[in-house]
Amino acid sequence: MTTGWIWHEAFNWHNTGNGSGFFPPGGFIQPYEAFDSPATKGRFAALVEVSGFDKQMKRLDATEVTDEEILRVHTADYLRRLKALDPTGGDAGENADFGPQGLRIARLAAGAVANAVRGVLSGEVSNAYALVRPAGHHAEPDRGRGYCILANTSIAARIAQEDFGIKRIAIVDWDVHHGNGTQKIFWEDPNVLTVSLHQDRLYPVDSGFREETGGPGAEGSVLNVPLPAGTGDGGYVRAVEHVVIPALQRFEPELIIVGSGMDAAVTDPLGRMMVTSDGFRRMSRLVIQAAAELSGGRLVFAHEGGYSAHYVPFCGMAVLEELTGVKSAVDDPYLVFFQNYPQRFIEPWQEEAIQQAALLARRVPVPVA
Amino acid sequence: MTTGWIWHEAFNWHNTGNGSGFFPPGGFIQPYEAFDSPATKGRFAALVEVSGFDKQMKRLDATEVTDEEILRVHTADYLRRLKALDPTGGDAGENADFGPQGLRIARLAAGAVANAVRGVLSGEVSNAYALVRPAGHHAEPDRGRGYCILANTSIAARIAQEDFGIKRIAIVDWDVHHGNGTQKIFWEDPNVLTVSLHQDRLYPVDSGFREETGGPGAEGSVLNVPLPAGTGDGGYVRAVEHVVIPALQRFEPELIIVGSGMDAAVTDPLGRMMVTSDGFRRMSRLVIQAAAELSGGRLVFAHEGGYSAHYVPFCGMAVLEELTGVKSAVDDPYLVFFQNYPQRFIEPWQEEAIQQAALLARRVPVPVA
Amino acid sequence: MTTGWIWHEAFNWHNTGNGSGFFPPGGFIQPYEAFDSPATKGRFAALVEVSGFDKQMKRLDATEVTDEEILRVHTADYLRRLKALDPTGGDAGENADFGPQGLRIARLAAGAVANAVRGVLSGEVSNAYALVRPAGHHAEPDRGRGYCILANTSIAARIAQEDFGIKRIAIVDWDVHHGNGTQKIFWEDPNVLTVSLHQDRLYPVDSGFREETGGPGAEGSVLNVPLPAGTGDGGYVRAVEHVVIPALQRFEPELIIVGSGMDAAVTDPLGRMMVTSDGFRRMSRLVIQAAAELSGGRLVFAHEGGYSAHYVPFCGMAVLEELTGVKSAVDDPYLVFFQNYPQRFIEPWQEEAIQQAALLARRVPVPVA
Amino acid sequence: MTTGWIWHEAFNWHNTGNGSGFFPPGGFIQPYEAFDSPATKGRFAALVEVSGFDKQMKRLDATEVTDEEILRVHTADYLRRLKALDPTGGDAGENADFGPQGLRIARLAAGAVANAVRGVLSGEVSNAYALVRPAGHHAEPDRGRGYCILANTSIAARIAQEDFGIKRIAIVDWDVHHGNGTQKIFWEDPNVLTVSLHQDRLYPVDSGFREETGGPGAEGSVLNVPLPAGTGDGGYVRAVEHVVIPALQRFEPELIIVGSGMDAAVTDPLGRMMVTSDGFRRMSRLVIQAAAELSGGRLVFAHEGGYSAHYVPFCGMAVLEELTGVKSAVDDPYLVFFQNYPQRFIEPWQEEAIQQAALLARRVPVPVA
Ligand SMILES: [Zn+2]
Ligand SMILES: [Zn+2]
Ligand SMILES: [Zn+2]
Ligand SMILES: [Zn+2]
Repeated sequence: MTTGWIWHEAFNWHNTGNGSGFFPPGGFIQPYEAFDSPATKGRFAALVEVSGFDKQMKRLDATEVTDEEILRVHTADYLRRLKALDPTGGDAGENADFGPQGLRIARLAAGAVANAVRGVLSGEVSNAYALVRPAGHHAEPDRGRGYCILANTSIAARIAQEDFGIKRIAIVDWDVHHGNGTQKIFWEDPNVLTVSLHQDRLYPVDSGFREETGGPGAEGSVLNVPLPAGTGDGGYVRAVEHVVIPALQRFEPELIIVGSGMDAAVTDPLGRMMVTSDGFRRMSRLVIQAAAELSGGRLVFAHEGGYSAHYVPFCGMAVLEELTGVKSAVDDPYLVFFQNYPQRFIEPWQEEAIQQAALLARRVPVPVA
Repeated sequence: MTTGWIWHEAFNWHNTGNGSGFFPPGGFIQPYEAFDSPATKGRFAALVEVSGFDKQMKRLDATEVTDEEILRVHTADYLRRLKALDPTGGDAGENADFGPQGLRIARLAAGAVANAVRGVLSGEVSNAYALVRPAGHHAEPDRGRGYCILANTSIAARIAQEDFGIKRIAIVDWDVHHGNGTQKIFWEDPNVLTVSLHQDRLYPVDSGFREETGGPGAEGSVLNVPLPAGTGDGGYVRAVEHVVIPALQRFEPELIIVGSGMDAAVTDPLGRMMVTSDGFRRMSRLVIQAAAELSGGRLVFAHEGGYSAHYVPFCGMAVLEELTGVKSAVDDPYLVFFQNYPQRFIEPWQEEAIQQAALLARRVPVPVA
Repeated sequence: MTTGWIWHEAFNWHNTGNGSGFFPPGGFIQPYEAFDSPATKGRFAALVEVSGFDKQMKRLDATEVTDEEILRVHTADYLRRLKALDPTGGDAGENADFGPQGLRIARLAAGAVANAVRGVLSGEVSNAYALVRPAGHHAEPDRGRGYCILANTSIAARIAQEDFGIKRIAIVDWDVHHGNGTQKIFWEDPNVLTVSLHQDRLYPVDSGFREETGGPGAEGSVLNVPLPAGTGDGGYVRAVEHVVIPALQRFEPELIIVGSGMDAAVTDPLGRMMVTSDGFRRMSRLVIQAAAELSGGRLVFAHEGGYSAHYVPFCGMAVLEELTGVKSAVDDPYLVFFQNYPQRFIEPWQEEAIQQAALLARRVPVPVA
Repeated sequence: MTTGWIWHEAFNWHNTGNGSGFFPPGGFIQPYEAFDSPATKGRFAALVEVSGFDKQMKRLDATEVTDEEILRVHTADYLRRLKALDPTGGDAGENADFGPQGLRIARLAAGAVANAVRGVLSGEVSNAYALVRPAGHHAEPDRGRGYCILANTSIAARIAQEDFGIKRIAIVDWDVHHGNGTQKIFWEDPNVLTVSLHQDRLYPVDSGFREETGGPGAEGSVLNVPLPAGTGDGGYVRAVEHVVIPALQRFEPELIIVGSGMDAAVTDPLGRMMVTSDGFRRMSRLVIQAAAELSGGRLVFAHEGGYSAHYVPFCGMAVLEELTGVKSAVDDPYLVFFQNYPQRFIEPWQEEAIQQAALLARRVPVPVA
């Protein structure tokens, strides 16, 4: 059993512009860094190398997605606009800046997820983790949004469908923000189940409701699990157990892609959740088991957001240990503190939100014989 | 009416050691910055100057607290240890590092709060804001804790009692962490009411419970309001209205000191709360009104924690606008996003926690005739 | 005797764009900081405050220069372009970026130098130091150049001439780069002597030659002293003694302005000179003596470039000590190393360059009776 | 023909302590970064990857040097002290700090150079570049000095001698500082020629003189080429042509190791030299040609210092292009500016210093039949 691993140094070079938080500095906004700084992902990649854990995995290449691949998900007009912006950089839509010649980096990020999927489907690796920047799940067919330029995971899913003949795909997105782009792209596709666990009304503030369940002909193939701010390991693990896994069991996907955002982490500046490395570990374990039972083990983790440069590396290592089945030399030094937080247990109001979502999981479409 | 304002550039120089998050870098902890970086407070001070708002206030000096003043709160042994550590710097206790010759900066921070109190009590200013670093509310009589070296606010309260003959003082601490040091120092002092609003069991994980109500002869003078993670403007404002203000009304303080932590802010990496600049504004307004009614307006804000370098400046400006009664030229650019979050309303489980604390507020001691 | 001191926090906010060295990041240029980062000047200002040396000086305000004042030096077209750029920021000419709403900061920098001149000419202070960012000496009438937007010092000189009736002004610029803008602005003005000590052909590479001596009617009023790379304290002090002072003695200025660049410092990344804090101290002392003898002590230091965030603070303190005549509590910790460098002595090839320039000093115009 | 390439992410993690320039921050030294920051080398490694140039080379592993290998150069007492310091980190001697558990990183750096030598001597690769941090050439048998912990290059040379039976080795060190450690280690070894081109009396200030020519039995095997501050491409290329190459031709080494410091670069903050990427390219080309003629092409570049995070990447790419014989996609964007500097030509005083050193080159020992 081999786990594929993809990271490209260019992801550290993705340039979110001259950003200070969400804004260009100027007036009364002092110059500073964007929330989406290289450290938030580069430090995870660095820990994998420094700990030697990359030797436990098979390194796959990131290559750029082609125009043709982009156009499987995005509009021709959007691609034209991206190319026109590329020489100077700019905003691809709504808070989705990239720097001069930065389109290449977005292509590499999408290509990394695509190659992770190719690696798993071709049998070159058993499963895979693609650590990419920029993220992709907010990108919509016709615009970038929320630090996302190209819909990395969606493009990869289309490649799985069209180039590998994979019929049913589940995308499980536990980034703390709603996976609005993925949902929109597959809204009417009954063969792609999109599940999003996210903080209720964080971003985008007007989507991600349980009432959104899929378009005509694809009813039930969209499943939103909004959770109240403050949910920790207890609530997240329960949500995976009681909503995600049952949904997967009904859907019987041939491939599972996890939108592996880490901004539900307990020190994330944008999310307000309290997931520790142990929580990410247990959530991953559950999905790995489900993949083993349902999709022949075919499982790809594609990194999404996560803005705690301090803690993402340790959450990431926990996930990689589960994917590989190998214990690394790294121990999460924060865990001794975070595991005492009361949020290791579930609260009643979290249970309530999960049970509501669990009802929806029962309406996920089953395969047609 | 004049508001005093204190900040010293040396607070930007406070050196929390070679810290990476909570830890010294080494092994599998990559070098990085401590959560308590200069930007988290220096950017607030900078915005005050760049916006010209310092001209709306009276600048007071920070001067170092003397040994004698320190010893009103801390043990002689602890002061000796601090002096011995000073040449090289080191940890003053539990995660309370300071750099070479850094004791001077801790003395200036405590001295800044003391001078703010002196300014208000002498009538030089009507109220005051002391923006200081390091913070103070975790420091205990015999050791530093949690980024705090000296108990800034407690020393200032002792000065108010002993040098100005102020009898009854209320310290209202809305830093997201429990004000364990302040509580400990005044545990048996019925003349100092210490109120702490904080995230339930965040830090220290084993204190800040409602059951802690004060020592022998001072029953009811300690009031803890633990709130569930995820509480936002709605819950915080309600907690001030239903717990803090009634407690103050019973206690009838002659001086109110606010432990003005801003780590309950919605983008703080350590707290998990969702307070916006509008929430801090409304909480401040309530306390200002209470001071006007109860303590002859005598009110000092002493900065505690707050680790969102992006957002603290805008929360801080809102508080200063309330203290001065003057609108600045600065608008919080984030507010348009954050005000759509559902946490502007209170949730039932937050209401429940507040009502429990409200019961305790009724046991706060009233003045003895 | 009082020294005026000007610094404004907004100078730390000057935003040179999303710059990586001289370039916008993109392609094979990794995101990083511009050479002209806030730390290069902000750390000098910080040291002045932390050491308490600001109490030895009189703080003067920085106020924005008006359109009318700008137009005394710059073209109306250039001012129009600056205003048009202001909402988004952009390049004011050649490598002279500023951020959104950044024109205000450039106005404050020019206004700071103007106020320093006003303070000295009005007698409010004896002499003054204006620490400003952006710098000004490369800015030309119709465009920004080399990190300079407005010609700070030139505007101030025009104000001295026109508003205070000062007839003869000497501008002594020892920034390591050629003071091309200042030279151009006063090219035909026989009443302003512009002296530039700089590294031979560094920037602009095609100006700053000894052959440039002033325009029609102003022959000899421009004096360039190009020095070979590697010149240290020995050569610089000699150049001041043998060229600058004799030129000033001939010219008999009523006001001396020093273009106080610190990029001739021994650790500057852009200059290749080897001046230590002691060299800056001795150069300053010589000019202070000359001012005492020639211009009634009327002397203003206006900061120009200087890119060693580590060392500028200590060079700056040495200059301030000379201006005030007061020893600070700060010792340059680097001096023990740098004073052993052989460049504390002059080399023959440096002597040669100085002697060539000394010949020109003899042609500086004397006052007409 | 294949070039070996070694870089390890751990080199980015080397922790020079809580350093501000040369000093621990405290008192009047504001916290800041050490001159030897990760960016100074990590950005070179990053450019190699982002440009895809790593695919033109064969990646070799960095492995830790063993105690036994260290003891071939260093004293047992020094190794004991390093091990004792390792848990907390500390100063290995004189300005040679490392962080907790940092000895591993120093071992990896030395091991990287050793593996580069092994790769070349085994024929696995034709030549090699080891990009390492910390550097090594200042480390002496019994102590670290000047950012160097272990004598990377010297250990590798001993391995070449003892494990591969290489008799004669030349180490050509063009780091801007004197290679004092290397010189000391091989002072009495007539089979190792150590050549150091450096800025005259920069660091260490009391070594690197032409008069130092080797110990008893090894006269002429040490060759110092001190160059005056301000020397650029012209002088450096001439020094290689007129001193280094003739010395190599006399010595007839079987292996050449270049101490590839890049702090002679034109924007280095510590050096005062003016070498551009083109200068490093031409110097490398000359040594590559010499290796082809003299040592069967056996050539290893081991990175030493270099503190211009902006410019090192482009200097490094030029060297790699020469080693591989392949043009990369990267053009040095600074070159258009720097090539106009007058220092592309040699100055008479530089010529003089070179000619003095050339006389010494004639006394380099020739092989004994
Ligand atoms: Zn997210
Ligand atoms: Zn706190
Ligand atoms: Zn300059
Ligand atoms: Zn060096």
